[in-house]
Amino acid sequence: QSKKQVYNFDSSSHHGLLITNKGLELIKENLGTIPLFDKSLAQTKAEIDAIIVEEIEVPIPKDMAGGYTHTQHKKNYDVVQKAGVLFQIYGDEKYATYIKDMFMEYAQMYPKLPLHPETRSYSRGKLFWQCLNDANWLVNMSQGYDAIYDWLSPKDRKFLETKLFKPFALFLSVENPQFFNRIHNHSTWGNAAVGMMGLAMRDNQLVNYALYGLPEDSIDANAVDNDGGLIKKPGQDAGFIANIEEAFSPDGYYTEGPYYQRYAMYPFLAFSVALENTVPELKVLAYKDSVQIKAVYALIDLTDSKGGFFPLNDGQKGMSFYNNALVNSVDIAYHYGSKDPELLAIAEIQNEVTLDDAGLAVALGLKRNEIQPYQKRSVNFTDGPKGNQGGLTILRSKEDSDLELVFKYSAQGNSHGHYDKLSYSIYENGDEVIPDYGLARFVNINSKNGGGYLKENTTWAKQTIAHNTVVQNETSHFNGDFKTGSSFHSQLHFQDLSNDLIQIVSAREHNAYEGTEMLRTVAMLSPKEGMKPIIIDIFKLQSKNANQYDLPFYYKGQLMDYSVDPVSESILKPLGTSNGYQHLWKEASAVTNSDLSKVTWLHNNLFYTLSSKTSVGDSLLFVRQGANDPVFNLRREPGIIIRKSNARDAIFVNIIESHGTYDAVTERAENTESIIDKIDIIQNTGTYTALEITYKDDNSNLLIISNLKADSSEKHSLTLNGTSYSWEGPYYFINR
Amino acid sequence: QSKKQVYNFDSSSHHGLLITNKGLELIKENLGTIPLFDKSLAQTKAEIDAIIVEEIEVPIPKDMAGGYTHTQHKKNYDVVQKAGVLFQIYGDEKYATYIKDMFMEYAQMYPKLPLHPETRSYSRGKLFWQCLNDANWLVNMSQGYDAIYDWLSPKDRKFLETKLFKPFALFLSVENPQFFNRIHNHSTWGNAAVGMMGLAMRDNQLVNYALYGLPEDSIDANAVDNDGGLIKKPGQDAGFIANIEEAFSPDGYYTEGPYYQRYAMYPFLAFSVALENTVPELKVLAYKDSVQIKAVYALIDLTDSKGGFFPLNDGQKGMSFYNNALVNSVDIAYHYGSKDPELLAIAEIQNEVTLDDAGLAVALGLKRNEIQPYQKRSVNFTDGPKGNQGGLTILRSKEDSDLELVFKYSAQGNSHGHYDKLSYSIYENGDEVIPDYGLARFVNINSKNGGGYLKENTTWAKQTIAHNTVVQNETSHFNGDFKTGSSFHSQLHFQDLSNDLIQIVSAREHNAYEGTEMLRTVAMLSPKEGMKPIIIDIFKLQSKNANQYDLPFYYKGQLMDYSVDPVSESILKPLGTSNGYQHLWKEASAVTNSDLSKVTWLHNNLFYTLSSKTSVGDSLLFVRQGANDPVFNLRREPGIIIRKSNARDAIFVNIIESHGTYDAVTERAENTESIIDKIDIIQNTGTYTALEITYKDDNSNLLIISNLKADSSEKHSLTLNGTSYSWEGPYYFINR
Ligand SMILES: [Ca+2]
Ligand SMILES: [Ca+2]
Ligand SMILES: [Ca+2]
Ligand SMILES: [Mg+2]
Ligand SMILES: [Mg+2]
Ligand SMILES: [Mg+2]
Ligand SMILES: [Mg+2]
Repeated sequence: QSKKQVYNFDSSSHHGLLITNKGLELIKENLGTIPLFDKSLAQTKAEIDAIIVEEIEVPIPKDMAGGYTHTQHKKNYDVVQKAGVLFQIYGDEKYATYIKDMFMEYAQMYPKLPLHPETRSYSRGKLFWQCLNDANWLVNMSQGYDAIYDWLSPKDRKFLETKLFKPFALFLSVENPQFFNRIHNHSTWGNAAVGMMGLAMRDNQLVNYALYGLPEDSIDANAVDNDGGLIKKPGQDAGFIANIEEAFSPDGYYTEGPYYQRYAMYPFLAFSVALENTVPELKVLAYKDSVQIKAVYALIDLTDSKGGFFPLNDGQKGMSFYNNALVNSVDIAYHYGSKDPELLAIAEIQNEVTLDDAGLAVALGLKRNEIQPYQKRSVNFTDGPKGNQGGLTILRSKEDSDLELVFKYSAQGNSHGHYDKLSYSIYENGDEVIPDYGLARFVNINSKNGGGYLKENTTWAKQTIAHNTVVQNETSHFNGDFKTGSSFHSQLHFQDLSNDLIQIVSAREHNAYEGTEMLRTVAMLSPKEGMKPIIIDIFKLQSKNANQYDLPFYYKGQLMDYSVDPVSESILKPLGTSNGYQHLWKEASAVTNSDLSKVTWLHNNLFYTLSSKTSVGDSLLFVRQGANDPVFNLRREPGIIIRKSNARDAIFVNIIESHGTYDAVTERAENTESIIDKIDIIQNTGTYTALEITYKDDNSNLLIISNLKADSSEKHSLTLNGTSYSWEGPYYFINR
Repeated sequence: QSKKQVYNFDSSSHHGLLITNKGLELIKENLGTIPLFDKSLAQTKAEIDAIIVEEIEVPIPKDMAGGYTHTQHKKNYDVVQKAGVLFQIYGDEKYATYIKDMFMEYAQMYPKLPLHPETRSYSRGKLFWQCLNDANWLVNMSQGYDAIYDWLSPKDRKFLETKLFKPFALFLSVENPQFFNRIHNHSTWGNAAVGMMGLAMRDNQLVNYALYGLPEDSIDANAVDNDGGLIKKPGQDAGFIANIEEAFSPDGYYTEGPYYQRYAMYPFLAFSVALENTVPELKVLAYKDSVQIKAVYALIDLTDSKGGFFPLNDGQKGMSFYNNALVNSVDIAYHYGSKDPELLAIAEIQNEVTLDDAGLAVALGLKRNEIQPYQKRSVNFTDGPKGNQGGLTILRSKEDSDLELVFKYSAQGNSHGHYDKLSYSIYENGDEVIPDYGLARFVNINSKNGGGYLKENTTWAKQTIAHNTVVQNETSHFNGDFKTGSSFHSQLHFQDLSNDLIQIVSAREHNAYEGTEMLRTVAMLSPKEGMKPIIIDIFKLQSKNANQYDLPFYYKGQLMDYSVDPVSESILKPLGTSNGYQHLWKEASAVTNSDLSKVTWLHNNLFYTLSSKTSVGDSLLFVRQGANDPVFNLRREPGIIIRKSNARDAIFVNIIESHGTYDAVTERAENTESIIDKIDIIQNTGTYTALEITYKDDNSNLLIISNLKADSSEKHSLTLNGTSYSWEGPYYFINR
């Protein structure tokens, strides 16, 4: 374990955890003339002024999340943090006194506190049922302590540090190494809490534990957490720096997805800013090519056009860049980053700033009208600490239309990952079109399993069939085994996001099903200049064995039309018995021929069509979620499954179009029909796949994919139907 | 048939169908300074200027609605109407020339035209498949003709009138009495078309046909239209005046509901305004106590808080006061009514005015900032021409909350009526909470039965089980027989919308099921000052026979919690075989005891609870729409059916609460539980029903309903559990 003694605080006054001395001067200078900061400050002042006249309540810990004692301790740390800000800005001692009184009550109680009575956590806390919440408490309290540090008498400081803060920090670190000494967002919170209190206390030991981990932890090599995740690989580094290293890919992508990244960002940035303000020579924000700042951009880029995070892995839908953690992240990325005027556009939508140096900088930038529109473009993220564990591509349409496709070929995503290799979801105007189910949980809703994960998260939401990707033989990727899934990742084959005619990405997965190679290529292109783009999806499989392949497309809305002839079920039965199939009702099914099979639906007054190039003997299954759901945990959303039976090699070619509109006020329906006339698979070998797509106006596109070689300078030539084509790079596309 | 010769036009210039001469002066005076008028005018000018440079197309009629010739003829009349406006305002002859050229092309074609080739209408048109559309054409063309009348040479006028307009008007009247001489919205269009062209042509014969009907029609007493509606009762008056008389209740309610009223209002008001402008002494808008103006207010009051019409009868959801017909109605009601500043608030939301005297008046009112908020209050509408055929009550919450309940105890509603006696639907913030299914049709969406009514409109949407009201023995009201249903109506028992503590309405239905008397009382009340109100629903049945009673509550959203213990179905079967039951999947069922049965769901991040006072042996059925729906015509929406089996007399007491919130960004859930602790039915006799509702804070309400006597001065006294109560009027309520 490399130990670095970087801290040697002098005893002079400093404030680094909330507002710096320099920031404070600037705030005082500008107060009353910086609308967004003034507004946020007024809100906080009104809120806190109303609270601090009430009696302080520090109850003996008892309840789970949602219960009284849990909520009260949460409220307490929130109030202390905000009162600290107000004390710094206004200098009114009522805030300092309130904070001190609160601290004193905790200092009375803490030394005698046993572990929290609720036993279900792998790391039980004292104030809360899990150390994680205790760490949230300490992060906020460290900020409050920092704010009143100079105001407190040395005697009070000593009392508080001895009775409360140091024991609290040691509890979260040396007494709970399985919580503190991991590469995990829990540990990031633990590290930040201990490190920030260390900075506030000028305690070099705590800061060093936080930055570089505990030198000893004796964690069992097989120990797992409540999610079944391994606590620690032998020999793995721990501490804050190691967590920065391991948490983000070089592009700033967080393997658990944006929902968890949002939660994880706060301790990363709060501690980093505290370090930046107190030990700037550590350059913690510049670490790993400024990956924490990149991560803030990644978070924004991982939102739909209404600001909602794409619900990757166990992400709860509805979480968005309006969350407080994102206000904090955006302000920090602006102030400690490059003062990017595009970030001001996000801050303006958030309509709130943090009450610190960063929030001030944003408010000043907005006041000076330096704002520029935030340009969300198609973007590619690598996954894995080194960026070599697959990734994620977002295709975004240009100009007038607002289509987004999120293609996932990443690593497993830790315990929050889903078996969703090569799956994608589609959004239009920020609304789901081809959704990812998200998670099966109602966070903090007590009646749904106390707000915790539902059984259906495992039996449905994580399963492959819950995603828009191929399922082989009705089993999930890696047989749904977390350990196996965690040891593999998909691979980018190629991508090109800079071609004006077509945006294209291709990725492969060879491990999800042993002996089966999967290559999926997804492209967004406009059939004609100025037209809304369509999505072309080529899913190629090659296997040693004959298999059943199912490719589902979940959709939102109501079926309007289809070219097939479905037989509907008079009694609904589950589609299968396990791996998520038990949760699907089969509503109808249709056999297909070698033509196009089209299905059109209406959602949000927009018409969509899935055009599927099917073969004789394929079938279309019309399914709906909700079977074997005795307590109504699942949404009743529909899907179409394209099934190929007894196939060794197979190719699914699908086109998704957003083509028409309905206006319920004028009752006008426009462009209600798909413009796709034909899809011809001209060639499909191990080496090349060539498609011709013909539109009803007789225009057509030719798309050739190099299935093996992805080098952009590689020369290819191929003769198709007597015409020879030559090109460089992994694909060829023409509009004709 | 009473004939009145009221017209004797002089030959001097007049314009009465679009803009009056006086209006034109005012418009010219104010142009450029009346923002909303200027904007609407600029939009129209831009639209028409782009169209009139194209070649005029007057194709030989061939297509159905949605097809080319249909759409083109529609477009033509729309352009002529707007070009007429532009010619009047700008005086630019290019508009007049365009209109004249268009007229000439029609005049060439019309004399040789046979009936439209499509034969499915009971009144086939010539330009369109039905006379109704031909009448739409003539209304608009009469306005265009009026606009250029003075500009045309007498020779051209004579030619157009002889070849086109008079024959067209006679075709719609004397040649199609079954279309023209009815009490029906088709006839209103026919009357307006013929009358307006009569006014434009100064043709007394046409105007008199329009106002008072054809003197002779020889309509078969058994003739029916395409909806199965009787064409004409023997001896019934016809013509425009009779249609005004019969179409609206004295309160302005239109028995078919707001969706059809919106469509019907245009010809009523267009012709009335034309008459008002040309023959003001007729005072047509003052007719029947200004019922047409009242009808405009009724239309607005029949919208939810987002402006969408409540989907009564065959109403398509999404239709709203943003519709053009409502822009026209609101402007006319403002200008020809009392210049009500509250109407300006609607006009402002519509963000558009008509380009005529009325629209000018509105734009001027808005410019002068005379706008007042439109106050939507609880309101009661009678149904039937004389106001004695039941009615409809809308309960609206006051102050901070935005709950609306629409209780329907009206007449059948003609061929568009549903078997929905004593049903209600509930809205919050303009969104459905307890929805009415609406109609099963996708208007103008070709892939859904050509945009026409779907089979499921009859088999599901009209059936009683599709509504939130009691179904006896799995049969619909009146056995689903239109003729029987049309000969009865429910009856208001009492209502009180002016009590600060409680808003209450009670209505009875004795004919829907022979031998069964139904009395439903619905109240909205706040359990405590400042709290969002709850809805109390008491449905009392008395029957000669033992029956099964089903009371469904359809809801939006997802189940979160319940106090019962449902057994869920591993295979879904339809709940029944007919009368709509065949379209419900039974997902689960629970038996109840004599406690409260509670079901809580989440919708739009709001928590709702249905608390049902059930008896031993009652059951709760958890159902979902969509069984026996082979072409996916139905939405998959859920419902809870409370079933009482083998009961002669029965009482359903239900409370619906909107009590909690969820915030997906902060992940905070608040007030997730119902506050109802107990419902006690203290007394339930033929004479009185007394309820005590106890809340979890031990407050309670006592509500006593007089089941027989509704007189507000009637004195009652009753002893309940040893306490005696005395009061006046049909109900007693205290908060304690
Ligand atoms: Ca082309
Ligand atoms: Ca109780
Ligand atoms: Ca009370
Ligand atoms: Mg996933
Ligand atoms: Mg997923
Ligand atoms: Mg109805
Ligand atoms: Mg209905």
